[in-house]
Amino acid sequence: MDSTPSTSTISKSVVLALRVLTFVFLLIALILIAINKGTEDTTNGPLEAKFNDFHAYRYMLSTIVIGFAYNILQMALSIFIVVSGKRVISGDGGYFFDFFGDKIISYLLISGSAAGYGVSDDLHSFFKAQELPFNSFFAKANASATLLLFAFLFTAIASVFTSLALPKKT
Amino acid sequence: MDSTPSTSTISKSVVLALRVLTFVFLLIALILIAINKGTEDTTNGPLEAKFNDFHAYRYMLSTIVIGFAYNILQMALSIFIVVSGKRVISGDGGYFFDFFGDKIISYLLISGSAAGYGVSDDLHSFFKAQELPFNSFFAKANASATLLLFAFLFTAIASVFTSLALPKKT
Repeated sequence: MDSTPSTSTISKSVVLALRVLTFVFLLIALILIAINKGTEDTTNGPLEAKFNDFHAYRYMLSTIVIGFAYNILQMALSIFIVVSGKRVISGDGGYFFDFFGDKIISYLLISGSAAGYGVSDDLHSFFKAQELPFNSFFAKANASATLLLFAFLFTAIASVFTSLALPKKT
Repeated sequence: MDSTPSTSTISKSVVLALRVLTFVFLLIALILIAINKGTEDTTNGPLEAKFNDFHAYRYMLSTIVIGFAYNILQMALSIFIVVSGKRVISGDGGYFFDFFGDKIISYLLISGSAAGYGVSDDLHSFFKAQELPFNSFFAKANASATLLLFAFLFTAIASVFTSLALPKKT
């Protein structure tokens, strides 16, 4: 590593800030999708829609929860590094943990967001054609998918930093 | 770079093999989704479904086409490197092109696959409930999304190699 200690500290602080942002966005996305409910009146009485009526939203929620847990772990590790200047996992292991962790979690987050957007758009058209628009329900689900997309972007940027921090192969 | 020339040549050949695999899988995925058509008989005559009736499948097709174009470019560059031992883009630029290219394209491919799976699953349930199963149509769309998922996996593995090949920051 020929980067000066100050450069390294700055990039660690940037990564920590990105993880805090990811955490906040995932938290709001989680609340939005988990409490999302919609009701439409039909001739057979009111019809209710919840996130767990749709596989894609359940998958989206799973990716949010996994990303959330990963970010809590990483924030704890990052705060420890910023405060103490030492890494919890010694040697190259920590760098590879960050590298693969950010890579896998960012893939997971974008897949959750894409599945959510994918189903919202076409299913909403379909429900509208049946005179059961559920507009507010789909709007909230899309808002959650958008927050998840931002959380993905923060993690993807963090992933660039943790890729650049990789030690060279020996 | 303290890796020996032979290690470097092996990893370049592995990356090239991964790109060829990605190319083949994307080509089949492209054909499968583009020619996909389904017909169900209704009381108002036959009802036809095509990929471009659904936003998610159109997005999926777009990601396949972009990934396909990127892989043709990268295969041409890789073959040039393997044959001549030289990189087309001199200096560190080529490494960063590979790094960001693989990263962005792999995110694009998994998002296309997730959007496709997301809409197939829930929309298929919905069509089945309407006595219009379109089973073969959704099965072929899912097969295309699966091939796209494999193409993503190959690109993600190539992305690990191109991340490890990054020169250190100076």
